[in-house]
Amino acid sequence: MRRTYLDYNATSPTKPEVIDAVSDCLKSWSNPSSVHQAGRDSKACLEAARRQVAALAGCHSKQIVFTSGGTEADNMVIQDASFDSYLALATEHPAVRVPIQMKGSKAQSLKVDDQGIIDLAFLEAALKQATGKILLCVMYANNETGAVQPIKEVVALARQYDAWVHCDAVQALGKIPVSFSDLGVHSMALSAHKIGGPPGVGALIVAEGQEVAPWIQGGGQERSFRSGTVNVPGVVGFGIAAELAQACLADASNHAVLRDQFEEALKRITPDVRIFSEDAKRLPNTSMFALEGFDSSVLFVSLDLAGICVSTGSACSSGVAKLSPVLLAMGVPEALAKSAIRISTGWASRQEDIDAFLKVWFRITASSGQNNKQPIA
Amino acid sequence: MRRTYLDYNATSPTKPEVIDAVSDCLKSWSNPSSVHQAGRDSKACLEAARRQVAALAGCHSKQIVFTSGGTEADNMVIQDASFDSYLALATEHPAVRVPIQMKGSKAQSLKVDDQGIIDLAFLEAALKQATGKILLCVMYANNETGAVQPIKEVVALARQYDAWVHCDAVQALGKIPVSFSDLGVHSMALSAHKIGGPPGVGALIVAEGQEVAPWIQGGGQERSFRSGTVNVPGVVGFGIAAELAQACLADASNHAVLRDQFEEALKRITPDVRIFSEDAKRLPNTSMFALEGFDSSVLFVSLDLAGICVSTGSACSSGVAKLSPVLLAMGVPEALAKSAIRISTGWASRQEDIDAFLKVWFRITASSGQNNKQPIA
Repeated sequence: MRRTYLDYNATSPTKPEVIDAVSDCLKSWSNPSSVHQAGRDSKACLEAARRQVAALAGCHSKQIVFTSGGTEADNMVIQDASFDSYLALATEHPAVRVPIQMKGSKAQSLKVDDQGIIDLAFLEAALKQATGKILLCVMYANNETGAVQPIKEVVALARQYDAWVHCDAVQALGKIPVSFSDLGVHSMALSAHKIGGPPGVGALIVAEGQEVAPWIQGGGQERSFRSGTVNVPGVVGFGIAAELAQACLADASNHAVLRDQFEEALKRITPDVRIFSEDAKRLPNTSMFALEGFDSSVLFVSLDLAGICVSTGSACSSGVAKLSPVLLAMGVPEALAKSAIRISTGWASRQEDIDAFLKVWFRITASSGQNNKQPIA
Repeated sequence: MRRTYLDYNATSPTKPEVIDAVSDCLKSWSNPSSVHQAGRDSKACLEAARRQVAALAGCHSKQIVFTSGGTEADNMVIQDASFDSYLALATEHPAVRVPIQMKGSKAQSLKVDDQGIIDLAFLEAALKQATGKILLCVMYANNETGAVQPIKEVVALARQYDAWVHCDAVQALGKIPVSFSDLGVHSMALSAHKIGGPPGVGALIVAEGQEVAPWIQGGGQERSFRSGTVNVPGVVGFGIAAELAQACLADASNHAVLRDQFEEALKRITPDVRIFSEDAKRLPNTSMFALEGFDSSVLFVSLDLAGICVSTGSACSSGVAKLSPVLLAMGVPEALAKSAIRISTGWASRQEDIDAFLKVWFRITASSGQNNKQPIA
């Protein structure tokens, strides 16, 4: 049975060119901290990959610290003891939301509107009220709804209050153009496996002249910000994935076409379906939707039996049956949030994947009497 | 030119079976936190690897938290805020030594003898003097000299003072039998790439009934101790490497034979050579030595030109020209420490690798008038 994979926001399948590059590197890599030829060769591979990732993220390669992933990159900034106040979007990924919540009364959650977009007036009031050095976390694009935040406006406001802006760009990278230097944020978190690279690799970008406290300590790798033998094959895979993603960015419109066709069909079958963040600027690959009174777990099981992979929320929280904090923050009623389904497409997605989903959607909603009984074209 | 690799303690080359397993997994892996079939399949791979690593390390698989490497595993324990006093061997790896030093006056360095072995009387005095909850870090085997510490004696002493014993077993694993439960330590750090696994993967083992504070926070992976999408292909590679290492442990004596032959030849060529930790229990694959007045940088360059990879200290610090803190802690005079060279063998090492080194050693020491001018057999 061919697997229909519509869960790219949980992870992209690794691209074949990346698998080849990682495998090749595994055959020859050495510890890049070693000064012998084998070590120097690996160090050169590492620096080449750093340039590839920098090119995709619109930063200087020397601003990049490689990490074990996006979650670690987010944590690196949040754990810096020099902040006094913490502001974070209510819809942040758990990699930001959870460590920020641990700051207790020093932390404040930032309101979003019903489209999941930051409330700038609320942000300004929060910035005014916050004391000392402020860390402001605003994700670029939401992992569940795909809603894209107006980062430049956020930065303009934040600068008036000398706040450090950290941007989790894990979901945005490779799906829309990302330019660290253009956005003007202080730090940014990236992940390789969301763009077709290998898991276990990510990056923290920190603006020139700024610094976060050293994180993992030891041998002094990554300019002493993140010690530990660098995962050279993983980083090389990240570099190749970044290069491929850059070339593919021109095709992002294709994903939007696929998504738009999908959502049209969805509405034709089930006119009452609500598509979240539909009126906001969204990632071209993401569609999250719900049908009131519909039991998404029945759909999920049917999809699973048919080999169709989707998500009922973010992958991280889908192991646990809990309502999406993202949807709740957007004011979505619990009854509707309960039935939320996310599909997300990527580099290997085809029309037939979408069709396979719609076929099951039609069948299940028909049996619950919730579709308009028109067979799909 | 065939590369002669004698730097296994910096990193082992990745085993071919591991490369195949990682590549295969990269082709099919999915986010193990996803509840669909693809996610569940990856979760099963993850748990199978956990059992393989547990079998090699002599612990229960549920005691294992996968990390991005040994350095992170060490840091996880040291960053736990619940400790009041910190004791660490003077010869610990930087992954332990550096974060412990950051504890300032709460930290104390533990004396070793001239063989690099812990001074138990000194330890007892330090334990007596330390206040509150004590973290005691004693590595299993030293990365530079290969000296193996009497962990059981350390644990017996530590228990009298309710100290938490953390053991960095990164260099010991796969080279000598390691049993977490036998040793009775509270926590242990492991690394995949030192045993022929991929880089970017490691593990922290924590004894049942004990707990370290959650480290990276976010999606709640690894029982909430270490959030972030788990590096499934890397972990799968670690599992295979663990299984292979277990099968190879019976051959560890072969490495000792190779090492003993090497050291005999070394002494024949240069009778004044000093082999560090020679009288201690040592890893069977490690030989660190020095010749007073000899400039090891000349040797290093000649070796490098001949494609022979060795280390002049630990890989982490060899990028910087500084004296080995390990040797200095053993009371080795600076002049001798300056000329230190480490060779370390592993799964692909052959007699001819050793011979290639000895040939250059003979030539260089002859030209500096420091050998006995007997050509090697």
